[in-house]
Amino acid sequence: MSWRRQSILSAGQFSARDLEEILNLSGKLETALKNSRNLKLLDDYVLATLFFEPSTRTRLSFEAAMHRLGGRVISAVGMQFSSLAKGETLFDTLKMVESYSDICAIRHSVEGASSLAARSIRIPVINAGDGAGEHPTQGLLDLYTIHRRGYLERPQMTVAFIGDIKYGRTIHSLVQLLSHFKVNLVFISPRELSLPEKYHDLLKRAGVSYSETEDISALREAHVGYVTRIQEERFIDHREYEKFKDAYVVDAELVGQCRKDLIVMHPLPRLTEVSTDLDAHPSAVYFEQANNGLYVRMALILGLLDINY
Amino acid sequence: MSWRRQSILSAGQFSARDLEEILNLSGKLETALKNSRNLKLLDDYVLATLFFEPSTRTRLSFEAAMHRLGGRVISAVGMQFSSLAKGETLFDTLKMVESYSDICAIRHSVEGASSLAARSIRIPVINAGDGAGEHPTQGLLDLYTIHRRGYLERPQMTVAFIGDIKYGRTIHSLVQLLSHFKVNLVFISPRELSLPEKYHDLLKRAGVSYSETEDISALREAHVGYVTRIQEERFIDHREYEKFKDAYVVDAELVGQCRKDLIVMHPLPRLTEVSTDLDAHPSAVYFEQANNGLYVRMALILGLLDINY
Amino acid sequence: MSWRRQSILSAGQFSARDLEEILNLSGKLETALKNSRNLKLLDDYVLATLFFEPSTRTRLSFEAAMHRLGGRVISAVGMQFSSLAKGETLFDTLKMVESYSDICAIRHSVEGASSLAARSIRIPVINAGDGAGEHPTQGLLDLYTIHRRGYLERPQMTVAFIGDIKYGRTIHSLVQLLSHFKVNLVFISPRELSLPEKYHDLLKRAGVSYSETEDISALREAHVGYVTRIQEERFIDHREYEKFKDAYVVDAELVGQCRKDLIVMHPLPRLTEVSTDLDAHPSAVYFEQANNGLYVRMALILGLLDINY
Repeated sequence: MSWRRQSILSAGQFSARDLEEILNLSGKLETALKNSRNLKLLDDYVLATLFFEPSTRTRLSFEAAMHRLGGRVISAVGMQFSSLAKGETLFDTLKMVESYSDICAIRHSVEGASSLAARSIRIPVINAGDGAGEHPTQGLLDLYTIHRRGYLERPQMTVAFIGDIKYGRTIHSLVQLLSHFKVNLVFISPRELSLPEKYHDLLKRAGVSYSETEDISALREAHVGYVTRIQEERFIDHREYEKFKDAYVVDAELVGQCRKDLIVMHPLPRLTEVSTDLDAHPSAVYFEQANNGLYVRMALILGLLDINY
Repeated sequence: MSWRRQSILSAGQFSARDLEEILNLSGKLETALKNSRNLKLLDDYVLATLFFEPSTRTRLSFEAAMHRLGGRVISAVGMQFSSLAKGETLFDTLKMVESYSDICAIRHSVEGASSLAARSIRIPVINAGDGAGEHPTQGLLDLYTIHRRGYLERPQMTVAFIGDIKYGRTIHSLVQLLSHFKVNLVFISPRELSLPEKYHDLLKRAGVSYSETEDISALREAHVGYVTRIQEERFIDHREYEKFKDAYVVDAELVGQCRKDLIVMHPLPRLTEVSTDLDAHPSAVYFEQANNGLYVRMALILGLLDINY
Repeated sequence: MSWRRQSILSAGQFSARDLEEILNLSGKLETALKNSRNLKLLDDYVLATLFFEPSTRTRLSFEAAMHRLGGRVISAVGMQFSSLAKGETLFDTLKMVESYSDICAIRHSVEGASSLAARSIRIPVINAGDGAGEHPTQGLLDLYTIHRRGYLERPQMTVAFIGDIKYGRTIHSLVQLLSHFKVNLVFISPRELSLPEKYHDLLKRAGVSYSETEDISALREAHVGYVTRIQEERFIDHREYEKFKDAYVVDAELVGQCRKDLIVMHPLPRLTEVSTDLDAHPSAVYFEQANNGLYVRMALILGLLDINY
């Protein structure tokens, strides 16, 4: 079953062929946008962005994608202030929105909220982040960024993940997607924040070669460095947080010791884990990465609505 | 004077002929939407949704209605956080919005806010709920739902209202609308939450036959059961609330004792007063009812802007 | 260098010729809107309104301007609740929004935020108010209002500013713009809230004749009275605030003692400093002034995107 006309709930749902299609379609849309600000493919369609948990960046990315396709948007943010505060269930809210829109993107603080949504309503649902669960569209735009730089097709390519490997849902999504490709993975993190067991299993089943280390100098061998924030709220002991926060920082000095063709990625927003002294460095692709979200989300919306392009 | 080009402030403003027109126009629009997602009737028009009190469901319904007509939307939600917090009067806000839009839908916690708005500005105003006052568009979509099921035209048709008859503004709106039709009404509620005097007067003047009871088994004779939530904040004594909350619940078991052709309505969102075990039951029309809000609000927007269809 | 294709950061950036162009273009757009609700000049463009500090009125004005030009809008309000709360810098947010939109309007509580934005991203930035800094589009719509009434071209024309001359950023913007024209200025305020030194310097350099007084009766000689609110938070001593608040009130009685052709302006929202008994008086132009914001902001958006009209 193709990814088209489905819901997008997890990075684990895609086949290698699905990913190839999504990467190709994203690339075609990126090219098309160079010649036109509005592709006018979805004049009659309405996207609902339902953000029970706020995330301005992700929401605006979906909404811009819909506008660049010629579509329309209705939006609800921070519904904890509204009827949900009165005890309404997510299910009832979704049933009401179902007839108002043709496709919806949902962000919710509870893992599994998007899956519940997809089972409840007839229109396609895109998981725009569900708690500690997944954030598959972020994973896809990360993959597109690696592909767009020509790295996905390289032999012997190494991706290093740095930071919170345990809780970082964008890492979890990207690891699942990369398992379809011939890559080496290196996970660099404090032991307390290392890769969960289920991803060990997944990588072994997929035959992906990978290693784990606490030493950030392992970045030196990597083609791609994917940095994430170590979140203070994960630690009971504040001093532990301070220690790790300062240890896993990627800056111009460290990048100077790495491969010349290293690219540094970050899902943004960042705190101090990627130094601003890297922003103008050719290795820094995190702003390009954020921009790529536009093309990938356009591709996903088109595909789910089964519009050919 | 026709309802067209006016403001919509109260369910009491409509004549029987107005209602016939609105029901017909809503039906035409529902049919048209089956063939087209965007009717492109209002390409040049802007709707302002001004929700001083949040209500995601109602706001999205108005905004989707405008988009499906081809129009545009500007929106302000929770203005207590903005300039109103600085002491600005509703009047000044409205004067500013007046030139930015062609029609506006207003929700406010204070009864009469929409009437004040309609007197203050030249564009049509739709009351999207004003405190303990009215919610006429909900009443109209409820009426459309009964009509759409063919029940409004039945002889000897009985509508049972269950729950908070005293404060339920959607009930007050629907009772006024139903008084133009040949129906019997049954009000089922704890005595403390029974029908206010002014609606007794209205029903007597209109010659509508009705009765009141505390016994939920009166639902057995009804063709339509309209359930509303009993709100905790109406009770000083929490135990009283708990007692009533559990007594007025419509579930599959109760519906099994009722007429086979009973339809169960609810303005949503619900808590426990309509059991989820009813959701898949043929009697449950409350999701259909929510969807009908789209067609009715499209009809109202078109009519107020005096666009023929 | 013309104002077109630039960012709009300060009222001080405009030449006399720029202002003439903006006033003319605003006038053409006002006329065009009498014949068409949607000028369809920006079908393919997206405006991002980024309001880190809420201001419903200003935001809706920008969004309506974009819609009336045929454009599209993405919007983020109160981002303190979202990713900024996680420590994200303004810079990272802007880089992400840069590729989602073609132009953006920014409101921020910190002076200089818009200038930082304009340096960070490639798309034009409009300062929609930055803390105690500037609010140049308000200044331009104020200037347009004076022009539209034919007063800017009058010989010997006097503009009186009343209220908080020290902190009122709309006054600071308008004073800078008026310094390009042949006008007399009178500043009426408590000494504690009088004109800052830098504007004395500016007016002297520009050769503008002006005077200062604490006496509100100086309004009698003015053609234009520009009233602003005296904000309670400016005073340590609450009794001082109460005294000034009551002393600088413009009402129908005071206007009755002034020139017959006096026009009273106010950036809105007001508290008590302009009495509501003036609302229906021919001198009251503050609602017209608010409406003019639409035409001026349309002109600015068109100019920054370098669309000819």
